[in-house]
Amino acid sequence: MPRTLGVCYYPEHWPEAQWATDAARMRDTGLTWVRIGEFAWSLMEPAPGTYDWDWLDRAVETLGNAVLKVVMGTPTATPPRWMLDKLPDMLAVDAQGRPRRFGSRRHYDFSHPGYREECRRIARAMGERYGRNPHVAAWQIDNEYDCHDTTLSYSDAARLGFRNWLAQKYQSPDALNRAWGNVFWSMQYDAFDQIDLPNLTVTEPNPAHVMDFRRYSSDQVVAFNRVQVDALRPLTDAPLIHNYMGRTLTFDHYRVGADLDIAAWDSYPIGFLSDRIEGTKKEKQTFLRQGHPDNQAFHHDLYRAVGKGRLWVMEQQPGPVNWAPYNPAPLPGMARLWAWEAFAHGAEAVCYFRWRQAPFAQEQLHAGLLRPDSQPAPALAEAAQVAEEIAQMPDLDQATGNVALIFDYESAWAWDTQPQGADFEMFRLAFAAYRALRRAGLSVDILPPDTGDLSPYKLVLAPGLMTLSDPLRAALATYHGIALVGPRSDLKTRDMAIPMPMGPHLPDTDVTVTLVESLPPSDRIRLQGGGAFRHWFEHLEGTAPVHLSTKDGRPAIMGGDHLRYLAGWPDDATFDGIIGGLCDAAGLPTLQMPDGLRVRDTATMRFLFNYGMTPVDWNGTTIPAAGVHWEARP
Amino acid sequence: MPRTLGVCYYPEHWPEAQWATDAARMRDTGLTWVRIGEFAWSLMEPAPGTYDWDWLDRAVETLGNAVLKVVMGTPTATPPRWMLDKLPDMLAVDAQGRPRRFGSRRHYDFSHPGYREECRRIARAMGERYGRNPHVAAWQIDNEYDCHDTTLSYSDAARLGFRNWLAQKYQSPDALNRAWGNVFWSMQYDAFDQIDLPNLTVTEPNPAHVMDFRRYSSDQVVAFNRVQVDALRPLTDAPLIHNYMGRTLTFDHYRVGADLDIAAWDSYPIGFLSDRIEGTKKEKQTFLRQGHPDNQAFHHDLYRAVGKGRLWVMEQQPGPVNWAPYNPAPLPGMARLWAWEAFAHGAEAVCYFRWRQAPFAQEQLHAGLLRPDSQPAPALAEAAQVAEEIAQMPDLDQATGNVALIFDYESAWAWDTQPQGADFEMFRLAFAAYRALRRAGLSVDILPPDTGDLSPYKLVLAPGLMTLSDPLRAALATYHGIALVGPRSDLKTRDMAIPMPMGPHLPDTDVTVTLVESLPPSDRIRLQGGGAFRHWFEHLEGTAPVHLSTKDGRPAIMGGDHLRYLAGWPDDATFDGIIGGLCDAAGLPTLQMPDGLRVRDTATMRFLFNYGMTPVDWNGTTIPAAGVHWEARP
Amino acid sequence: MPRTLGVCYYPEHWPEAQWATDAARMRDTGLTWVRIGEFAWSLMEPAPGTYDWDWLDRAVETLGNAVLKVVMGTPTATPPRWMLDKLPDMLAVDAQGRPRRFGSRRHYDFSHPGYREECRRIARAMGERYGRNPHVAAWQIDNEYDCHDTTLSYSDAARLGFRNWLAQKYQSPDALNRAWGNVFWSMQYDAFDQIDLPNLTVTEPNPAHVMDFRRYSSDQVVAFNRVQVDALRPLTDAPLIHNYMGRTLTFDHYRVGADLDIAAWDSYPIGFLSDRIEGTKKEKQTFLRQGHPDNQAFHHDLYRAVGKGRLWVMEQQPGPVNWAPYNPAPLPGMARLWAWEAFAHGAEAVCYFRWRQAPFAQEQLHAGLLRPDSQPAPALAEAAQVAEEIAQMPDLDQATGNVALIFDYESAWAWDTQPQGADFEMFRLAFAAYRALRRAGLSVDILPPDTGDLSPYKLVLAPGLMTLSDPLRAALATYHGIALVGPRSDLKTRDMAIPMPMGPHLPDTDVTVTLVESLPPSDRIRLQGGGAFRHWFEHLEGTAPVHLSTKDGRPAIMGGDHLRYLAGWPDDATFDGIIGGLCDAAGLPTLQMPDGLRVRDTATMRFLFNYGMTPVDWNGTTIPAAGVHWEARP
Ligand SMILES: [Zn+2]
Ligand SMILES: [Zn+2]
Ligand SMILES: [Zn+2]
Repeated sequence: MPRTLGVCYYPEHWPEAQWATDAARMRDTGLTWVRIGEFAWSLMEPAPGTYDWDWLDRAVETLGNAVLKVVMGTPTATPPRWMLDKLPDMLAVDAQGRPRRFGSRRHYDFSHPGYREECRRIARAMGERYGRNPHVAAWQIDNEYDCHDTTLSYSDAARLGFRNWLAQKYQSPDALNRAWGNVFWSMQYDAFDQIDLPNLTVTEPNPAHVMDFRRYSSDQVVAFNRVQVDALRPLTDAPLIHNYMGRTLTFDHYRVGADLDIAAWDSYPIGFLSDRIEGTKKEKQTFLRQGHPDNQAFHHDLYRAVGKGRLWVMEQQPGPVNWAPYNPAPLPGMARLWAWEAFAHGAEAVCYFRWRQAPFAQEQLHAGLLRPDSQPAPALAEAAQVAEEIAQMPDLDQATGNVALIFDYESAWAWDTQPQGADFEMFRLAFAAYRALRRAGLSVDILPPDTGDLSPYKLVLAPGLMTLSDPLRAALATYHGIALVGPRSDLKTRDMAIPMPMGPHLPDTDVTVTLVESLPPSDRIRLQGGGAFRHWFEHLEGTAPVHLSTKDGRPAIMGGDHLRYLAGWPDDATFDGIIGGLCDAAGLPTLQMPDGLRVRDTATMRFLFNYGMTPVDWNGTTIPAAGVHWEARP
Repeated sequence: MPRTLGVCYYPEHWPEAQWATDAARMRDTGLTWVRIGEFAWSLMEPAPGTYDWDWLDRAVETLGNAVLKVVMGTPTATPPRWMLDKLPDMLAVDAQGRPRRFGSRRHYDFSHPGYREECRRIARAMGERYGRNPHVAAWQIDNEYDCHDTTLSYSDAARLGFRNWLAQKYQSPDALNRAWGNVFWSMQYDAFDQIDLPNLTVTEPNPAHVMDFRRYSSDQVVAFNRVQVDALRPLTDAPLIHNYMGRTLTFDHYRVGADLDIAAWDSYPIGFLSDRIEGTKKEKQTFLRQGHPDNQAFHHDLYRAVGKGRLWVMEQQPGPVNWAPYNPAPLPGMARLWAWEAFAHGAEAVCYFRWRQAPFAQEQLHAGLLRPDSQPAPALAEAAQVAEEIAQMPDLDQATGNVALIFDYESAWAWDTQPQGADFEMFRLAFAAYRALRRAGLSVDILPPDTGDLSPYKLVLAPGLMTLSDPLRAALATYHGIALVGPRSDLKTRDMAIPMPMGPHLPDTDVTVTLVESLPPSDRIRLQGGGAFRHWFEHLEGTAPVHLSTKDGRPAIMGGDHLRYLAGWPDDATFDGIIGGLCDAAGLPTLQMPDGLRVRDTATMRFLFNYGMTPVDWNGTTIPAAGVHWEARP
Repeated sequence: MPRTLGVCYYPEHWPEAQWATDAARMRDTGLTWVRIGEFAWSLMEPAPGTYDWDWLDRAVETLGNAVLKVVMGTPTATPPRWMLDKLPDMLAVDAQGRPRRFGSRRHYDFSHPGYREECRRIARAMGERYGRNPHVAAWQIDNEYDCHDTTLSYSDAARLGFRNWLAQKYQSPDALNRAWGNVFWSMQYDAFDQIDLPNLTVTEPNPAHVMDFRRYSSDQVVAFNRVQVDALRPLTDAPLIHNYMGRTLTFDHYRVGADLDIAAWDSYPIGFLSDRIEGTKKEKQTFLRQGHPDNQAFHHDLYRAVGKGRLWVMEQQPGPVNWAPYNPAPLPGMARLWAWEAFAHGAEAVCYFRWRQAPFAQEQLHAGLLRPDSQPAPALAEAAQVAEEIAQMPDLDQATGNVALIFDYESAWAWDTQPQGADFEMFRLAFAAYRALRRAGLSVDILPPDTGDLSPYKLVLAPGLMTLSDPLRAALATYHGIALVGPRSDLKTRDMAIPMPMGPHLPDTDVTVTLVESLPPSDRIRLQGGGAFRHWFEHLEGTAPVHLSTKDGRPAIMGGDHLRYLAGWPDDATFDGIIGGLCDAAGLPTLQMPDGLRVRDTATMRFLFNYGMTPVDWNGTTIPAAGVHWEARP
């Protein structure tokens, strides 16, 4: 698979006279792809039913003439103002009951049938116009689903849709009452149309109620996306893509991904470190201008799974952004490092956001490859360097790694619904496990929860999976590597209840979680031989062998040679010890990674990325701050 | 008075086939009481006016056959979904104006006349069915008034009710305008129906307006409760009980208690430490698995007063709960300790919540005496041990203590209405005084604010009482012990104004508060001889003798031999010194309590409770962590 | 200009029999002014159209007979309850869409045309009654515009007004779309009545949209004030005044001030330190009972500019207030110090708030010169001392200082609209610059952003001015002192876009800001020779000389001898060094100020104010804590 670079471009922001110059500079920088169109509905259709394609035809032609390939975006994340006159109730409603109004973007409700029809119409119209255009080589549908917390809506459309969804799922109110346990607190319903959305209840709503609403809401994203897929498929052979965001967990990306050809994501390492990644004060300061050294890798690996192997970065941060709490500039070299890291993790294309910083509107302080006055911004030269380096390096093939991490969206909702400890989120646990694997120098594959074959892997981690799927349980039953399941795995039914007999139900492994404890930050459960659990601890019973105990003699890890259950949330050093022991047992070699350095192996090459602020030595090679090093894979 | 144990049970959660086994196990554990019914309205009355008592008859009979006594709960905290079709406006409305919707519990407005009628109806129907049932030996009305902040509602029903209440109280708008001081800021009303609830004003509303709304809201709880009392009284001779919550101050418990026979409360020591008790970081960590060592005692003493001497614990935490910010498991032994502490403070019954952990719905992660799979949870054995110990010990009689603390709900509202310092609450001051008394090894009685006889006590504290009642003022005038009044006592009229002449108006004691200061956490007022006031300081004038001064020579305690006024909020060590001095003067012996150890004297016995994490020595006896020790009272 | 003292008085709060005694005591205290009337609408007009002036006539006469001069306040900040029956939609609406209800004060919407008419009517009626009354010597219009965040309203009246305002400004939707850059995210409007207020959008609204709403909202305050000015001007020759609040930046005070004769402000040093001034923990504790030592001075200097040289303090804190998070009492002497400081900064009158503490309603815990029982509160003697001291000292004339700071309200809105870093506010930067000047012992003039003559000053600072005005740019072009412009100055067009070519556009100074960075609190950009930038850093390019560089060699200050651009936000010590260097270059002598001591020079006198808690030595003179010292200006 060749590696390519690209850029996001908004011809509508600039005088048409400038387009050809821009295109020539893009080509000269070594770019292959140009994404356009995804916010331009008001220009494509200035009045309801009145299309204006001329400007877009010329833009595509100008870019194509510069031998650039176009990624055409459907503009459904930004319906024009006139759409609200047609569909006044199309706005999402927040959990406080307030409509989320026009004036920015993503002002629509996934549940609204009328708006879905409008999306089908514009997608079809675009497909008809550009589906066979030789310069349009890929499509992006909508933009950043869930960005600005837009998956969950408490609108009338959502209420009606949810009731229908429940009726289809349960067929009778009694079945729903039984599944949810509504006998508790006299919550039984006599009819589906008595059921409300689970917001603004006096105290917490039934977790089964919330979970079904979360599933319903995820399904709406899948259905919304599918409408456009169905509209475009007959009209184009180009791959269909969506650009996901970082740490968005409110819909099942695997299911959206199943309808698409490639999973792209929008990578803003510095913005994400500032606004959505936990970290110590020291980490936040050390990586202020680089981003968290594991966050990009995690998302590359996750979205490679979502894309069934095909991964893009559709938007790559090139300089300071405008939307994070604080917006410093990247360390020189990071725009190159991030691109190479994406390639090392399997990306086919990395597109910088954006060609030129627009001097107006919401993102005027968001950098591009060019300054607003068309002078080069710092990242332009770094992009050009990457383009040259790509040209000189053979294609990279992803190897299937030796290590896998199971990651499940539905479990993330279950944690949200029932955190049991303030601020507990499944992502934090999964990311803690991922970081521990990375600190051991391992290259990780992330797998969906219905994975049925673990045989390629010597080590598999399955933390926080509320319910094990049947295929995964079957795969575990015959697995010959080492699987470490838990904590908080397989402790719930799909109805968000405690199963009977109590979980986990691990094949041939007699272990039961009898009680769970959530711990405040000040507390820890100390382990024999040092180390501790934080945040979470489960009381285990059963006849399975105990591999690790707490200091006061309670089981911390139980299970057999191949399948073990972890009873708590290890702190970082403890996770290192546990992973180290498992790798030794599994015959997996590990690496001692210097501070700030991260490694990624492809089929043939080993890549090293220095996220630190100072040079590090790697087997005699000095890798500078923000430096990338590659060598043949050992 | 004999001591008994019990448990909360939900037959409707379990197959009927299991009931008899459950009942037998309860009896074998040594339990006497089983509370049932309080959330089962939807099963008692599955459709409006259609009752189904059969299942409940059988449940009562099954329990009764096992020689268990039933506490029958009226289910008015959980009206069924069909109730909203009958009474669409029955929901409470939060301070932001949003209805608090169906889907959990306590979804009703205390002010709603229609819902009160429904409650009268179901209570009467239950009374008719079970009022003379030989197995039903007590009644619980509703469940945990105010839980989930449900006392205050900003609904139309509340608005209308409040206007009528004001009209009855003031008779004319002019009288109200004068009482409230509405001449300030042109706030006069011309008619009662111009008066709104005091939420969503531009800046703070008139404190007199707020106070009347707080009194009105409390009155609604009293009236709501009385409706069911009136319905049940003619139909049963069993005692009527309500189970209050911890640190709920929004209604006058004494007035609700006046209509009932026993005050019960729901004691969740670990949950409360996590979510509603201030404490240092160290205390929060030290007592993480035990609860605050004074909080249970305080509530036992308070609710003993509310119950006019009759106290129960209706729900006793047995293991981790699900609703606090963090939910660790209790230290082994605490389920026993908590029960014994309740008995030492006069409880007649302690009922664990709940028999078996339900695997579904909101509280599925809340432990019981049994696990969801019917295996014993850790607390079952501790309950059985308590039952055996009870059987072997003579009855305990409460002694009237030597020390009293006056505690007043209306003053708590006045502090809320006019804290003057961020986060100041009367409870914190009263609890600080209570803890100081406990550190001195004293057994405390809590008294209502209209107490007219202080003669049983050698020492009385009256902190934070905004207005002294006439009976209390009269009692103070002839008191021969030592009463320490203040700070912030008797400084307001009942109309929430500064009295003229300015307060306090202490009998034969010339002291006036001329000015009050609230202090940020960083500040303190140092006292002569060491120690300091925190949070609050009043400037005193008058001819009464000065007993203590600030370092710069201002009065800190003034008054005569029997009646003194305290000008500030002493820090813990200072409170110890003040209490020590008063006890010496009053001839009250004090104790040096080791860390974590607490004492409670009954008429004949002294009980010691080790809340600490390590054993302590008590006069040569080693009391282990979570240990209880008793000996003859010296 | 003579200096005078006064007091705020509410005859309507007290029995008429008391008025004459009060007046005599005021006169005996040495007071000149009595402000009355500003909250008494309900008594002036008890029913719609029914006026009652008799009581007010008598109050004026009683005060006048005691040779006191009356400041008559229009009562438009507190419309009576009946006004809502006339104008049910007159209430402002908060950003969450909730009407801000009756029950306190300032319950009106600046945009509401009906309410403006009511204000015109009452102002005219008062003017007709008292405009020529010999005792009424000044007028106050309304009270504390914007207090309780009342400038911005999201009401229907505001929505309609905003649309009309936009239509007048832009004339066509296309012009607006172009100016705002609505092509971004398909936000174009087809008609002005499609435009909503910029609240409750899905993510941030267009900053140009927000800025126009901020300008519109400020204009409404100006227009609202002008209605009363126009009503009163023909009816009186007395000066018209408004009493502004501290750190209120939501409307353009210069424009309101342009219609008035005097700018007054309400100075609550201790309350403001607690609730609206940033400070280190140490500063908050050190100045707890004195207020921030630069905040009063800053506002005096600012409002002297707003008043075109005429400054009053209309409300001066005399003791503890009731509305701040914590409300300690002032250090003895502060009520005198604050008054003298105001005089030193040019105040003609200082009026204490209030004569007597009212024992009822919202501010019952807000001190006055008298206690509620008419006994002297501590500040009464201090006021009397100031009155004596005034009588013994010659008049003070303000000198134009040597140093100026440009302060611009519109820029403050631009920072709010686009802070780029969490919690960044222009006020903080301007105040940091002001404090640095004060630490150097300089007396500062604050100038509006359209200042066209800088020639009186040797040094001018212009931090954070988003757009330089034409007059200011022209003044800078010919300036012969040293002007330090930036950071974040002249980087935006009036349409809130990045200008092309990029800014700043400094006369004859080739410097361009190519990129901005916002920094978290943990980060800093170190400078050569020590010191650092915090919060903010701009990348500079150009051929102008570099005066200061970062440690890694990037420009920190660039420009010529007279006009320089500052690229970041210096920390305090760094600001001291920069100011020191500029003063040396400008030939401005500086002072070494001891901790807590502040200096202010008038034309002939030098004043020193000791804000510290301990005495300080000043050239051999010991100035006690809370002490004031004056000497001939050197
Ligand atoms: Zn072509
Ligand atoms: Zn029976
Ligand atoms: Zn006269």
